[in-house]
Amino acid sequence: MRLARFRLPGGTSGFGVVAGDVIVRLDQRVGSFEQLLADPVAPSPDDPTIPLDDIDWLPPVGDHPKIVCVGFNYPSHASEAERGPAQDAPTHPTLFTRFPDSLVGAGAPVVRPAGEDSLDWEGEAALVIGRPGRRIPPEEAWSHIAGVTCLAENSVRTWQLHSTQAAAGKNWPGSGAAGPWLTSTDELGDGPLRVTTRLNGDLVQDDTTDRLTFQFADLVAYVSTFTPLRPGDLIATGTPRGIGYRMDPPRFLRPGDVLEVEVSGVGVLRNGVVDEVAQDRVPQPVGRAAR
Amino acid sequence: MRLARFRLPGGTSGFGVVAGDVIVRLDQRVGSFEQLLADPVAPSPDDPTIPLDDIDWLPPVGDHPKIVCVGFNYPSHASEAERGPAQDAPTHPTLFTRFPDSLVGAGAPVVRPAGEDSLDWEGEAALVIGRPGRRIPPEEAWSHIAGVTCLAENSVRTWQLHSTQAAAGKNWPGSGAAGPWLTSTDELGDGPLRVTTRLNGDLVQDDTTDRLTFQFADLVAYVSTFTPLRPGDLIATGTPRGIGYRMDPPRFLRPGDVLEVEVSGVGVLRNGVVDEVAQDRVPQPVGRAAR
Repeated sequence: MRLARFRLPGGTSGFGVVAGDVIVRLDQRVGSFEQLLADPVAPSPDDPTIPLDDIDWLPPVGDHPKIVCVGFNYPSHASEAERGPAQDAPTHPTLFTRFPDSLVGAGAPVVRPAGEDSLDWEGEAALVIGRPGRRIPPEEAWSHIAGVTCLAENSVRTWQLHSTQAAAGKNWPGSGAAGPWLTSTDELGDGPLRVTTRLNGDLVQDDTTDRLTFQFADLVAYVSTFTPLRPGDLIATGTPRGIGYRMDPPRFLRPGDVLEVEVSGVGVLRNGVVDEVAQDRVPQPVGRAAR
Repeated sequence: MRLARFRLPGGTSGFGVVAGDVIVRLDQRVGSFEQLLADPVAPSPDDPTIPLDDIDWLPPVGDHPKIVCVGFNYPSHASEAERGPAQDAPTHPTLFTRFPDSLVGAGAPVVRPAGEDSLDWEGEAALVIGRPGRRIPPEEAWSHIAGVTCLAENSVRTWQLHSTQAAAGKNWPGSGAAGPWLTSTDELGDGPLRVTTRLNGDLVQDDTTDRLTFQFADLVAYVSTFTPLRPGDLIATGTPRGIGYRMDPPRFLRPGDVLEVEVSGVGVLRNGVVDEVAQDRVPQPVGRAAR
Protein backbone atom coordinates (compact mmCIF):
# COMPACT_ATOMS: atom_id res chain seq x y z
CA MET A 1 0.00 0.00 0.00
CA ARG A 2 0.96 3.60 -0.51
CA LEU A 3 0.20 5.50 2.70
CA ALA A 4 0.01 9.26 2.50
CA ARG A 5 -0.90 12.41 4.37
CA PHE A 6 -2.57 15.34 2.66
CA ARG A 7 -4.10 18.73 3.12
CA LEU A 8 -7.20 20.02 1.33
CA PRO A 9 -7.44 23.55 -0.02
CA GLY A 10 -9.64 24.56 2.92
CA GLY A 11 -6.90 23.57 5.34
CA THR A 12 -8.32 20.23 6.48
CA SER A 13 -5.69 17.53 6.66
CA GLY A 14 -6.07 13.79 6.54
CA PHE A 15 -4.44 10.54 5.55
CA GLY A 16 -5.17 7.41 3.65
CA VAL A 17 -4.13 5.00 0.94
CA VAL A 18 -3.24 6.05 -2.59
CA ALA A 19 -5.13 3.95 -5.14
CA GLY A 20 -4.67 5.00 -8.75
CA ASP A 21 -5.59 8.65 -9.05
CA VAL A 22 -7.41 8.97 -5.72
CA ILE A 23 -6.67 8.80 -2.04
CA VAL A 24 -8.93 6.52 -0.06
CA ARG A 25 -9.42 8.40 3.20
CA LEU A 26 -8.81 6.43 6.36
CA ASP A 27 -8.61 9.36 8.76
CA GLN A 28 -12.32 9.09 9.50
CA ARG A 29 -12.00 5.64 11.03
CA VAL A 30 -8.36 5.38 12.14
CA GLY A 31 -7.32 7.62 15.02
CA SER A 32 -4.06 8.91 13.63
CA PHE A 33 -1.52 8.41 10.89
CA GLU A 34 0.82 6.98 13.50
CA GLN A 35 -1.79 4.38 14.40
CA LEU A 36 -2.20 3.47 10.74
CA LEU A 37 1.55 3.00 10.42
CA ALA A 38 1.76 0.84 13.51
CA ASP A 39 -1.28 -1.26 12.65
CA PRO A 40 -2.22 -0.90 8.96
CA VAL A 41 -5.78 -1.45 7.83
CA ALA A 42 -6.91 -1.99 4.25
CA PRO A 43 -9.29 0.46 2.61
CA SER A 44 -12.86 -0.64 2.15
CA PRO A 45 -15.41 0.32 -0.52
CA ASP A 46 -17.20 2.45 2.07
CA ASP A 47 -14.23 4.76 2.62
CA PRO A 48 -14.49 8.18 0.95
CA THR A 49 -12.05 9.07 -1.80
CA ILE A 50 -10.47 12.30 -3.00
CA PRO A 51 -8.85 12.87 -6.39
CA LEU A 52 -5.09 13.33 -6.11
CA ASP A 53 -5.52 16.52 -8.14
CA ASP A 54 -7.42 18.05 -5.22
CA ILE A 55 -4.83 17.55 -2.49
CA ASP A 56 -1.57 18.98 -1.29
CA TRP A 57 0.81 16.25 -0.14
CA LEU A 58 2.22 16.41 3.37
CA PRO A 59 5.36 14.53 4.42
CA PRO A 60 4.30 10.94 5.23
CA VAL A 61 5.58 11.05 8.81
CA GLY A 62 4.16 11.42 12.31
CA ASP A 63 2.96 14.66 13.85
CA HIS A 64 6.17 15.17 15.83
CA PRO A 65 8.60 12.75 14.26
CA LYS A 66 12.15 12.07 15.21
CA ILE A 67 14.07 12.56 11.98
CA VAL A 68 17.48 10.90 12.01
CA CYS A 69 19.75 11.17 9.00
CA VAL A 70 22.96 9.34 8.13
CA GLY A 71 25.88 10.93 6.34
CA PHE A 72 28.44 9.30 4.07
CA ASN A 73 26.54 6.02 3.82
CA TYR A 74 27.29 5.35 0.15
CA PRO A 75 31.02 4.78 -0.33
CA SER A 76 30.89 6.74 -3.60
CA HIS A 77 29.56 9.82 -1.77
CA ALA A 78 31.94 9.37 1.17
CA SER A 79 34.75 9.48 -1.38
CA GLU A 80 33.30 12.54 -3.13
CA ALA A 81 32.96 14.29 0.22
CA GLU A 82 36.69 13.77 0.78
CA ARG A 83 36.31 11.49 3.72
CA GLY A 84 39.83 10.13 3.91
CA PRO A 85 41.01 6.52 4.19
CA ALA A 86 40.45 6.53 7.95
CA GLN A 87 36.74 6.83 7.26
CA ASP A 88 36.62 4.34 4.41
CA ALA A 89 35.32 1.57 6.63
CA PRO A 90 33.46 3.38 9.42
CA THR A 91 32.43 1.25 12.36
CA HIS A 92 29.38 3.37 13.21
CA PRO A 93 26.94 5.50 11.24
CA THR A 94 27.48 9.27 11.16
CA LEU A 95 24.14 10.66 12.35
CA PHE A 96 22.48 14.02 12.66
CA THR A 97 18.87 15.14 12.98
CA ARG A 98 16.41 17.45 11.28
CA PHE A 99 13.47 19.33 12.71
CA PRO A 100 10.14 18.38 11.10
CA ASP A 101 9.55 21.88 9.73
CA SER A 102 12.63 21.49 7.54
CA LEU A 103 10.61 19.24 5.20
CA VAL A 104 7.71 19.97 2.86
CA GLY A 105 5.56 17.44 1.03
CA ALA A 106 5.71 16.43 -2.61
CA GLY A 107 4.80 19.19 -5.03
CA ALA A 108 5.39 22.04 -2.60
CA PRO A 109 8.38 24.17 -3.44
CA VAL A 110 11.51 23.82 -1.36
CA VAL A 111 12.83 27.12 -0.09
CA ARG A 112 16.20 28.64 -0.89
CA PRO A 113 17.09 30.81 2.11
CA ALA A 114 17.41 34.53 1.58
CA GLY A 115 21.00 35.53 1.10
CA GLU A 116 22.32 31.97 0.82
CA ASP A 117 23.34 30.43 -2.46
CA SER A 118 24.35 26.96 -1.34
CA LEU A 119 21.12 24.96 -1.12
CA ASP A 120 22.17 21.53 -2.37
CA TRP A 121 20.22 18.38 -3.18
CA GLU A 122 20.57 15.02 -1.46
CA GLY A 123 18.25 12.38 -2.86
CA GLU A 124 17.66 9.48 -0.48
CA ALA A 125 15.49 6.55 0.42
CA ALA A 126 14.04 7.04 3.89
CA LEU A 127 12.46 4.57 6.31
CA VAL A 128 9.17 5.38 8.02
CA ILE A 129 8.82 3.56 11.32
CA GLY A 130 5.69 1.52 11.97
CA ARG A 131 5.88 -0.51 15.16
CA PRO A 132 7.63 1.27 18.02
CA GLY A 133 10.76 -0.17 19.52
CA ARG A 134 13.96 0.25 21.46
CA ARG A 135 17.16 -1.74 21.02
CA ILE A 136 15.69 -3.47 17.99
CA PRO A 137 17.91 -6.33 16.80
CA PRO A 138 18.84 -6.07 13.09
CA GLU A 139 17.03 -9.32 12.34
CA GLU A 140 13.78 -7.80 13.67
CA ALA A 141 14.23 -4.38 12.08
CA TRP A 142 11.96 -5.00 9.12
CA SER A 143 9.00 -5.64 11.36
CA HIS A 144 9.39 -2.08 12.67
CA ILE A 145 9.59 -0.37 9.28
CA ALA A 146 6.18 0.63 7.90
CA GLY A 147 7.63 1.52 4.53
CA VAL A 148 10.00 3.58 2.43
CA THR A 149 9.58 7.10 1.12
CA CYS A 150 11.60 9.43 -1.11
CA LEU A 151 13.55 12.18 0.63
CA ALA A 152 15.21 15.34 -0.60
CA GLU A 153 17.54 15.75 2.36
CA ASN A 154 18.72 19.08 1.06
CA SER A 155 21.44 21.03 2.82
CA VAL A 156 22.60 24.61 3.04
CA ARG A 157 26.27 23.81 2.52
CA THR A 158 27.83 27.01 3.80
CA TRP A 159 26.03 26.64 7.13
CA GLN A 160 26.63 22.89 7.28
CA LEU A 161 30.33 23.68 7.15
CA HIS A 162 30.27 26.46 9.76
CA SER A 163 31.39 23.95 12.38
CA THR A 164 32.11 20.25 12.78
CA GLN A 165 28.39 19.61 13.38
CA ALA A 166 25.92 19.58 10.50
CA ALA A 167 22.81 20.88 12.31
CA ALA A 168 23.00 24.49 11.12
CA GLY A 169 22.92 23.39 7.48
CA LYS A 170 20.22 20.75 7.81
CA ASN A 171 17.34 22.51 9.47
CA TRP A 172 16.29 25.45 7.32
CA PRO A 173 12.49 25.57 7.10
CA GLY A 174 11.13 23.94 3.97
CA SER A 175 14.61 23.30 2.64
CA GLY A 176 13.95 19.61 2.04
CA ALA A 177 11.03 17.37 1.15
CA ALA A 178 9.60 13.91 1.75
CA GLY A 179 6.95 11.88 -0.04
CA PRO A 180 4.71 11.70 -1.88
CA TRP A 181 3.84 8.59 0.16
CA LEU A 182 5.50 5.66 1.82
CA THR A 183 5.25 2.32 0.10
CA SER A 184 4.75 -0.47 2.60
CA THR A 185 7.58 -2.95 2.91
CA ASP A 186 5.49 -5.91 1.70
CA GLU A 187 5.38 -4.28 -1.76
CA LEU A 188 9.09 -3.59 -2.02
CA GLY A 189 10.39 -7.09 -2.66
CA ASP A 190 13.71 -8.39 -1.49
CA GLY A 191 16.10 -6.71 -3.90
CA PRO A 192 17.97 -3.45 -3.53
CA LEU A 193 16.23 -0.16 -4.21
CA ARG A 194 17.58 2.24 -6.79
CA VAL A 195 17.86 5.86 -5.70
CA THR A 196 18.08 8.47 -8.43
CA THR A 197 18.00 12.24 -8.34
CA ARG A 198 17.23 14.43 -11.35
CA LEU A 199 17.74 18.15 -11.63
CA ASN A 200 15.57 19.66 -14.35
CA GLY A 201 15.41 16.20 -15.90
CA ASP A 202 19.16 15.52 -15.83
CA LEU A 203 20.36 12.57 -13.78
CA VAL A 204 22.70 13.76 -11.03
CA GLN A 205 22.62 10.93 -8.47
CA ASP A 206 22.15 7.21 -9.12
CA ASP A 207 22.97 4.33 -6.81
CA THR A 208 21.41 1.25 -5.23
CA THR A 209 20.82 0.47 -1.59
CA ASP A 210 22.82 -2.77 -1.66
CA ARG A 211 25.87 -0.48 -1.70
CA LEU A 212 24.96 1.24 1.56
CA THR A 213 27.68 0.92 4.18
CA PHE A 214 25.00 0.59 6.85
CA GLN A 215 21.96 -1.25 5.56
CA PHE A 216 18.40 -0.39 6.51
CA ALA A 217 18.31 -2.99 9.30
CA ASP A 218 21.68 -1.83 10.67
CA LEU A 219 20.41 1.74 10.88
CA VAL A 220 17.20 0.78 12.67
CA ALA A 221 19.19 -1.29 15.15
CA TYR A 222 21.79 1.40 15.80
CA VAL A 223 19.38 4.33 16.08
CA SER A 224 16.92 2.43 18.27
CA THR A 225 19.71 1.61 20.69
CA PHE A 226 20.08 5.23 21.75
CA THR A 227 16.58 6.58 21.13
CA PRO A 228 13.16 4.90 21.21
CA LEU A 229 11.57 4.77 17.78
CA ARG A 230 7.87 5.50 17.38
CA PRO A 231 5.38 5.20 14.54
CA GLY A 232 5.99 7.98 12.04
CA ASP A 233 9.65 8.55 12.85
CA LEU A 234 11.93 8.85 9.84
CA ILE A 235 15.38 7.45 9.22
CA ALA A 236 17.13 8.85 6.15
CA THR A 237 19.54 6.29 4.77
CA GLY A 238 22.12 8.49 3.05
CA THR A 239 22.72 10.14 -0.27
CA PRO A 240 24.67 8.81 -3.28
CA ARG A 241 27.51 10.54 -5.07
CA GLY A 242 26.55 13.54 -7.15
CA ILE A 243 25.78 16.52 -4.94
CA GLY A 244 26.01 19.97 -6.46
CA TYR A 245 28.73 21.10 -4.07
CA ARG A 246 31.17 18.68 -5.67
CA MET A 247 30.47 19.73 -9.24
CA ASP A 248 33.03 21.88 -10.99
CA PRO A 249 31.96 24.60 -10.68
CA PRO A 250 29.50 23.89 -7.84
CA ARG A 251 25.85 23.99 -8.88
CA PHE A 252 23.31 24.84 -6.23
CA LEU A 253 19.51 24.91 -6.33
CA ARG A 254 17.91 28.11 -7.57
CA PRO A 255 14.40 29.35 -8.15
CA GLY A 256 12.77 27.64 -11.10
CA ASP A 257 14.69 24.39 -10.71
CA VAL A 258 12.75 21.15 -10.52
CA LEU A 259 14.22 18.46 -8.31
CA GLU A 260 13.10 14.85 -8.53
CA VAL A 261 14.07 12.03 -6.19
CA GLU A 262 13.00 8.58 -7.32
CA VAL A 263 13.19 5.39 -5.29
CA SER A 264 12.42 2.28 -7.30
CA GLY A 265 9.23 0.59 -6.18
CA VAL A 266 8.22 3.69 -4.24
CA GLY A 267 7.73 6.60 -6.62
CA VAL A 268 8.95 10.06 -7.51
CA LEU A 269 9.20 13.04 -5.18
CA ARG A 270 9.06 16.20 -7.27
CA ASN A 271 9.58 19.72 -5.94
CA GLY A 272 10.23 23.10 -7.42
CA VAL A 273 12.51 25.66 -5.81
CA VAL A 274 11.55 29.15 -4.69
CA ASP A 275 13.29 31.95 -2.88
CA GLU A 276 12.42 32.62 0.73
CA VAL A 277 9.90 35.42 0.92
CA ALA A 278 10.08 38.28 3.32
CA GLN A 279 6.97 37.06 5.17
CA ASP A 280 8.98 34.19 6.60
CA ARG A 281 10.44 36.69 8.99
CA VAL A 282 8.09 36.99 11.92
CA PRO A 283 7.40 40.65 12.67
CA GLN A 284 9.52 41.67 15.62
CA PRO A 285 8.09 43.35 18.68
CA VAL A 286 9.93 46.31 20.07
CA GLY A 287 12.85 44.78 21.92
CA ARG A 288 13.31 44.76 25.63
CA ALA A 289 16.44 46.66 26.58
CA ALA A 290 19.41 44.84 25.12
CA ARG A 291 21.31 42.92 27.72
CA MET B 1 8.70 34.73 38.05
CA ARG B 2 9.62 31.09 38.17
CA LEU B 3 7.56 29.25 35.55
CA ALA B 4 7.30 25.50 35.84
CA ARG B 5 5.57 22.42 34.52
CA PHE B 6 4.60 19.55 36.80
CA ARG B 7 2.86 16.23 37.00
CA LEU B 8 0.68 15.07 39.88
CA PRO B 9 0.84 11.53 41.25
CA GLY B 10 -2.40 10.64 39.46
CA GLY B 11 -0.80 11.53 36.12
CA THR B 12 -2.40 14.93 35.59
CA SER B 13 0.05 17.51 34.36
CA GLY B 14 -0.09 21.28 34.60
CA PHE B 15 1.96 24.44 34.83
CA GLY B 16 2.17 27.60 36.83
CA VAL B 17 4.31 29.94 38.87
CA VAL B 18 6.48 28.81 41.77
CA ALA B 19 5.87 30.97 44.85
CA GLY B 20 7.67 29.88 47.98
CA ASP B 21 6.78 26.27 48.66
CA VAL B 22 3.79 26.07 46.34
CA ILE B 23 3.00 26.23 42.65
CA VAL B 24 0.23 28.61 41.70
CA ARG B 25 -1.57 26.78 38.94
CA LEU B 26 -2.20 28.74 35.77
CA ASP B 27 -3.09 25.83 33.51
CA GLN B 28 -6.77 26.27 34.29
CA ARG B 29 -6.94 29.72 32.75
CA VAL B 30 -4.03 29.83 30.27
CA GLY B 31 -4.33 27.58 27.24
CA SER B 32 -0.84 26.13 27.24
CA PHE B 33 2.60 26.50 28.74
CA GLU B 34 3.78 27.82 25.40
CA GLN B 35 1.13 30.54 25.59
CA LEU B 36 2.25 31.45 29.11
CA LEU B 37 5.84 31.74 27.91
CA ALA B 38 4.89 33.92 24.95
CA ASP B 39 2.55 36.14 26.94
CA PRO B 40 3.14 35.81 30.69
CA VAL B 41 0.34 36.52 33.15
CA ALA B 42 0.75 37.07 36.85
CA PRO B 43 -0.88 34.72 39.34
CA SER B 44 -3.93 35.98 41.20
CA PRO B 45 -5.27 35.11 44.65
CA ASP B 46 -8.01 33.07 43.00
CA ASP B 47 -5.61 30.64 41.35
CA PRO B 48 -5.34 27.23 43.02
CA THR B 49 -2.04 26.20 44.58
CA ILE B 50 -0.26 22.89 45.09
CA PRO B 51 2.55 22.21 47.57
CA LEU B 52 5.87 21.58 45.82
CA ASP B 53 6.15 18.40 47.87
CA ASP B 54 3.18 16.98 45.97
CA ILE B 55 4.47 17.40 42.43
CA ASP B 56 6.93 15.83 40.05
CA TRP B 57 8.76 18.44 38.03
CA LEU B 58 8.67 18.26 34.25
CA PRO B 59 11.20 19.99 32.00
CA PRO B 60 10.08 23.64 31.65
CA VAL B 61 9.82 23.52 27.87
CA GLY B 62 7.11 23.23 25.22
CA ASP B 63 5.26 20.06 24.32
CA HIS B 64 7.39 19.43 21.23
CA PRO B 65 10.35 21.73 21.68
CA LYS B 66 13.26 22.26 19.40
CA ILE B 67 16.28 21.66 21.60
CA VAL B 68 19.46 23.16 20.21
CA CYS B 69 22.74 22.76 22.07
CA VAL B 70 26.10 24.44 21.58
CA GLY B 71 29.42 22.70 22.08
CA PHE B 72 32.74 24.19 23.12
CA ASN B 73 31.24 27.54 24.08
CA TYR B 74 33.41 28.14 27.14
CA PRO B 75 37.06 28.54 26.10
CA SER B 76 38.13 26.55 29.16
CA HIS B 77 36.06 23.55 28.04
CA ALA B 78 37.09 23.92 24.41
CA SER B 79 40.68 23.68 25.61
CA GLU B 80 39.91 20.67 27.82
CA ALA B 81 38.18 18.97 24.89
CA GLU B 82 41.38 19.31 22.88
CA ARG B 83 39.96 21.65 20.32
CA GLY B 84 43.16 22.84 18.69
CA PRO B 85 44.31 26.37 17.93
CA ALA B 86 42.28 26.44 14.71
CA GLN B 87 39.15 26.28 16.86
CA ASP B 88 40.31 28.73 19.50
CA ALA B 89 38.39 31.58 17.96
CA PRO B 90 35.49 29.91 16.17
CA THR B 91 33.47 32.12 13.87
CA HIS B 92 30.25 30.14 14.31
CA PRO B 93 28.68 28.11 17.10
CA THR B 94 29.04 24.33 17.01
CA LEU B 95 25.44 23.10 17.24
CA PHE B 96 23.65 19.82 17.66
CA THR B 97 20.16 18.87 18.80
CA ARG B 98 18.48 16.66 21.36
CA PHE B 99 15.13 14.92 21.24
CA PRO B 100 12.76 16.00 24.02
CA ASP B 101 12.61 12.53 25.55
CA SER B 102 16.31 12.75 26.33
CA LEU B 103 15.49 15.09 29.25
CA VAL B 104 13.74 14.45 32.56
CA GLY B 105 12.62 17.06 35.08
CA ALA B 106 14.23 18.04 38.36
CA GLY B 107 14.25 15.28 40.97
CA ALA B 108 13.69 12.44 38.52
CA PRO B 109 16.67 10.15 38.12
CA VAL B 110 18.73 10.38 34.96
CA VAL B 111 19.28 7.04 33.31
CA ARG B 112 22.63 5.37 32.71
CA PRO B 113 22.14 3.19 29.63
CA ALA B 114 22.47 -0.54 30.03
CA GLY B 115 25.92 -1.70 29.06
CA GLU B 116 27.39 1.80 28.75
CA ASP B 117 29.72 3.24 31.35
CA SER B 118 30.36 6.69 29.87
CA LEU B 119 27.39 8.83 30.93
CA ASP B 120 29.01 12.19 31.64
CA TRP B 121 27.69 15.42 33.13
CA GLU B 122 27.47 18.77 31.38
CA GLY B 123 26.02 21.51 33.56
CA GLU B 124 24.67 24.46 31.58
CA ALA B 125 22.44 27.50 31.59
CA ALA B 126 19.71 27.11 28.98
CA LEU B 127 17.41 29.65 27.37
CA VAL B 128 13.68 29.01 27.10
CA ILE B 129 12.12 30.87 24.21
CA GLY B 130 9.08 33.07 24.82
CA ARG B 131 8.09 35.11 21.80
CA PRO B 132 8.47 33.27 18.51
CA GLY B 133 10.80 34.58 15.86
CA ARG B 134 12.94 34.03 12.82
CA ARG B 135 16.16 35.89 11.95
CA ILE B 136 16.08 37.65 15.28
CA PRO B 137 18.72 40.38 15.48
CA PRO B 138 21.02 40.06 18.50
CA GLU B 139 19.81 43.37 19.88
CA GLU B 140 16.25 42.01 19.95
CA ALA B 141 17.13 38.57 21.27
CA TRP B 142 16.26 39.26 24.90
CA SER B 143 12.69 40.07 24.00
CA HIS B 144 12.36 36.50 22.68
CA ILE B 145 13.81 34.76 25.73
CA ALA B 146 11.20 33.89 28.36
CA GLY B 147 13.83 32.91 30.88
CA VAL B 148 16.74 30.73 31.89
CA THR B 149 16.73 27.21 33.30
CA CYS B 150 19.36 24.78 34.55
CA LEU B 151 20.33 21.96 32.23
CA ALA B 152 22.20 18.71 32.72
CA GLU B 153 23.15 18.23 29.08
CA ASN B 154 24.59 14.82 29.84
CA SER B 155 26.30 12.78 27.16
CA VAL B 156 27.12 9.15 26.53
CA ARG B 157 30.73 9.78 25.53
CA THR B 158 31.49 6.52 23.78
CA TRP B 159 28.54 7.01 21.45
CA GLN B 160 29.20 10.73 21.03
CA LEU B 161 32.61 9.76 19.68
CA HIS B 162 31.39 7.01 17.34
CA SER B 163 31.48 9.50 14.47
CA THR B 164 32.15 13.16 13.80
CA GLN B 165 28.54 13.98 14.71
CA ALA B 166 27.41 14.10 18.33
CA ALA B 167 23.78 12.94 17.91
CA ALA B 168 24.28 9.32 18.95
CA GLY B 169 25.69 10.39 22.32
CA LYS B 170 23.21 13.14 23.07
CA ASN B 171 19.82 11.53 22.70
CA TRP B 172 19.59 8.64 25.13
CA PRO B 173 16.18 8.68 26.83
CA GLY B 174 16.25 10.33 30.24
CA SER B 175 20.00 10.82 30.06
CA GLY B 176 19.79 14.54 30.84
CA ALA B 177 17.57 16.89 32.81
CA ALA B 178 16.18 20.42 32.78
CA GLY B 179 14.57 22.55 35.46
CA PRO B 180 13.25 22.82 38.03
CA TRP B 181 11.77 25.97 36.48
CA LEU B 182 12.76 28.84 34.26
CA THR B 183 13.37 32.17 35.89
CA SER B 184 12.04 35.01 33.79
CA THR B 185 14.63 37.37 32.35
CA ASP B 186 13.32 40.40 34.26
CA GLU B 187 14.54 38.78 37.49
CA LEU B 188 18.01 37.90 36.26
CA GLY B 189 19.62 41.33 36.28
CA ASP B 190 22.24 42.47 33.86
CA GLY B 191 25.32 40.68 35.16
CA PRO B 192 26.75 37.33 34.12
CA LEU B 193 25.27 34.12 35.48
CA ARG B 194 27.42 31.65 37.32
CA VAL B 195 27.08 28.02 36.25
CA THR B 196 28.26 25.38 38.71
CA THR B 197 27.97 21.60 38.69
CA ARG B 198 28.36 19.44 41.78
CA LEU B 199 28.78 15.69 41.87
CA ASN B 200 27.81 14.25 45.25
CA GLY B 201 28.44 17.69 46.69
CA ASP B 202 31.88 18.22 45.12
CA LEU B 203 32.28 21.13 42.75
CA VAL B 204 33.27 19.84 39.30
CA GLN B 205 32.32 22.71 36.96
CA ASP B 206 32.32 26.43 37.69
CA ASP B 207 32.29 29.29 35.22
CA THR B 208 30.36 32.44 34.36
CA THR B 209 28.41 33.29 31.26
CA ASP B 210 30.41 36.43 30.50
CA ARG B 211 33.11 34.01 29.35
CA LEU B 212 30.90 32.37 26.74
CA THR B 213 32.37 32.58 23.26
CA PHE B 214 28.87 33.07 21.85
CA GLN B 215 26.68 35.04 24.23
CA PHE B 216 22.99 34.33 24.77
CA ALA B 217 21.92 36.96 22.23
CA ASP B 218 24.42 35.67 19.65
CA LEU B 219 23.02 32.17 19.99
CA VAL B 220 19.40 33.28 19.61
CA ALA B 221 20.34 35.28 16.52
CA TYR B 222 22.34 32.48 14.92
CA VAL B 223 19.88 29.67 15.65
CA SER B 224 16.85 31.69 14.60
CA THR B 225 18.48 32.41 11.27
CA PHE B 226 18.23 28.79 10.18
CA THR B 227 15.20 27.60 12.15
CA PRO B 228 12.12 29.43 13.42
CA LEU B 229 12.02 29.60 17.20
CA ARG B 230 8.75 29.03 19.03
CA PRO B 231 7.62 29.40 22.63
CA GLY B 232 9.05 26.58 24.70
CA ASP B 233 12.05 25.86 22.52
CA LEU B 234 15.32 25.43 24.38
CA ILE B 235 18.81 26.69 23.56
CA ALA B 236 21.57 25.18 25.70
CA THR B 237 24.44 27.60 25.99
CA GLY B 238 27.37 25.27 26.55
CA THR B 239 29.19 23.57 29.40
CA PRO B 240 32.24 24.79 31.37
CA ARG B 241 35.48 22.91 31.89
CA GLY B 242 35.29 19.93 34.21
CA ILE B 243 33.56 17.02 32.51
CA GLY B 244 34.22 13.53 33.85
CA TYR B 245 35.71 12.31 30.59
CA ARG B 246 38.71 14.61 31.08
CA MET B 247 39.43 13.56 34.64
CA ASP B 248 42.40 11.27 35.25
CA PRO B 249 41.14 8.61 35.41
CA PRO B 250 37.81 9.45 33.77
CA ARG B 251 34.87 9.52 36.17
CA PHE B 252 31.44 8.81 34.76
CA LEU B 253 27.99 8.91 36.35
CA ARG B 254 26.88 5.77 38.16
CA PRO B 255 23.82 4.68 40.11
CA GLY B 256 23.57 6.44 43.44
CA ASP B 257 25.33 9.60 42.29
CA VAL B 258 23.63 12.93 42.87
CA LEU B 259 24.22 15.57 40.21
CA GLU B 260 23.43 19.23 40.83
CA VAL B 261 23.53 22.01 38.27
CA GLU B 262 23.15 25.50 39.69
CA VAL B 263 22.66 28.69 37.71
CA SER B 264 22.89 31.82 39.85
CA GLY B 265 19.60 33.67 40.06
CA VAL B 266 17.77 30.63 38.71
CA GLY B 267 18.12 27.72 41.12
CA VAL B 268 19.44 24.21 41.49
CA LEU B 269 18.61 21.23 39.29
CA ARG B 270 19.17 18.07 41.30
CA ASN B 271 18.96 14.55 39.89
CA GLY B 272 19.99 11.12 41.02
CA VAL B 273 21.33 8.49 38.66
CA VAL B 274 19.85 5.03 38.06
CA ASP B 275 20.61 2.18 35.74
CA GLU B 276 18.35 1.58 32.79
CA VAL B 277 15.85 -1.11 33.64
CA ALA B 278 14.95 -3.98 31.40
CA GLN B 279 11.43 -2.63 30.90
CA ASP B 280 12.84 0.15 28.76
CA ARG B 281 13.13 -2.42 26.03
CA VAL B 282 9.82 -2.62 24.24
CA PRO B 283 8.81 -6.25 23.75
CA GLN B 284 9.53 -7.23 20.18
CA PRO B 285 6.98 -8.84 17.93
CA VAL B 286 8.03 -11.82 15.89
CA GLY B 287 10.05 -10.36 13.06
CA ARG B 288 9.00 -10.29 9.47
CA ALA B 289 11.45 -12.26 7.34
CA ALA B 290 14.79 -10.50 7.42
CA ARG B 291 15.45 -8.60 4.26
